[in-house]
Amino acid sequence: MKLYTYWRSSAAWRVRIALNLKNLSYQSAPVHLARGEQRSDAFRAVNPNAVVPALALDDGTVLTQSLAIIEYLEETYPLPALLPSEPRQRAKVRAAAQLIACDIHPINNLRVVEHLKSSLGRTPEDAAAWMHHWMRSGLEAYARSIDAAGRFSFGDAPTVADLCLIPQLYNARRWGLDLAGLERLAEIDAAAATLPAFQAAAATAQPDAEAS
Amino acid sequence: MKLYTYWRSSAAWRVRIALNLKNLSYQSAPVHLARGEQRSDAFRAVNPNAVVPALALDDGTVLTQSLAIIEYLEETYPLPALLPSEPRQRAKVRAAAQLIACDIHPINNLRVVEHLKSSLGRTPEDAAAWMHHWMRSGLEAYARSIDAAGRFSFGDAPTVADLCLIPQLYNARRWGLDLAGLERLAEIDAAAATLPAFQAAAATAQPDAEAS
Repeated sequence: MKLYTYWRSSAAWRVRIALNLKNLSYQSAPVHLARGEQRSDAFRAVNPNAVVPALALDDGTVLTQSLAIIEYLEETYPLPALLPSEPRQRAKVRAAAQLIACDIHPINNLRVVEHLKSSLGRTPEDAAAWMHHWMRSGLEAYARSIDAAGRFSFGDAPTVADLCLIPQLYNARRWGLDLAGLERLAEIDAAAATLPAFQAAAATAQPDAEAS
Repeated sequence: MKLYTYWRSSAAWRVRIALNLKNLSYQSAPVHLARGEQRSDAFRAVNPNAVVPALALDDGTVLTQSLAIIEYLEETYPLPALLPSEPRQRAKVRAAAQLIACDIHPINNLRVVEHLKSSLGRTPEDAAAWMHHWMRSGLEAYARSIDAAGRFSFGDAPTVADLCLIPQLYNARRWGLDLAGLERLAEIDAAAATLPAFQAAAATAQPDAEAS
């Protein structure tokens, strides 16, 4: 498998963790989002929609959208499971993942912030305030949606919710968000940081990582 | 089951279609988003995160996030199926659904547009341009991601992708988006409009619908 990725892409990062947790080897194909490589003809031939992640399977099928890719991996390589087995519990874990993937990340990603600055004439300070507003309210919602205790968001093993949380926390820190009151999330972050699958998936561990 | 809903909420609408297609009866509990009822203590007791849809099961469990709810319904009431059976095909359908649920809808929903106007001081015209930009690019991406033919986005029966598409097209028309070049999507919309499950789920068919 070949993963089209970018070191700081939260969505690609989620898939990297899933691949690592399931002990699947893959080739990393970096696409430099900040330089616009995703809009190149070469990458559009892989994913016409010009976003990462994209996972090229060995049969040539290209899968897109991080949560769809992770569901595919879960169905095809079931162990270790990234979702519980009981349907209501699965729904709660998926809802927490979607809180980040649908309610925080899309409003805060690079293309939206660039659009805010270029087309709506907002300043970098406006952009930072925008980021903080959605991250803070979204992470508070996430914290209300997970279990009150446990090493991870739901129980003592990582689920797809944690795969979304960890990159989002990196992003929150990068933008200087105050995480006061969200200590439970910081504890989960610390637990994840002890696992090799999360370590190897981290932004700064990628072959295309740059000095900040 | 009791569905907390709002007539114009795209996300609640997706769940209404799923419930109807699976022939599941439910009680409709309208929450007036435009008047802020989602922030009432009464509704926060149901969903602390103050968003619709929320589906209260008969055992009292409350499920949130439209795609997580639909996956729950799919796992619990498998027929008619809203996802194909083959994992790669399932991934493609889920990716198309997420293109709308994660890449278009969150950037265009009421709370984001209100924030754009109130906190960033943008005019209604700015808001409309914002809506059009993301809807148009997102719907073009969707059109590239689905099958080239068939009554629905993938084959001749509706999938979760269509459940996301139909409310998004209503929203696009409401905001006056030019759908030129997206005729395939308009054809799917017309096919859906012939099915009672889609008719009964439409915004204007809801008990809380208002004159536009």
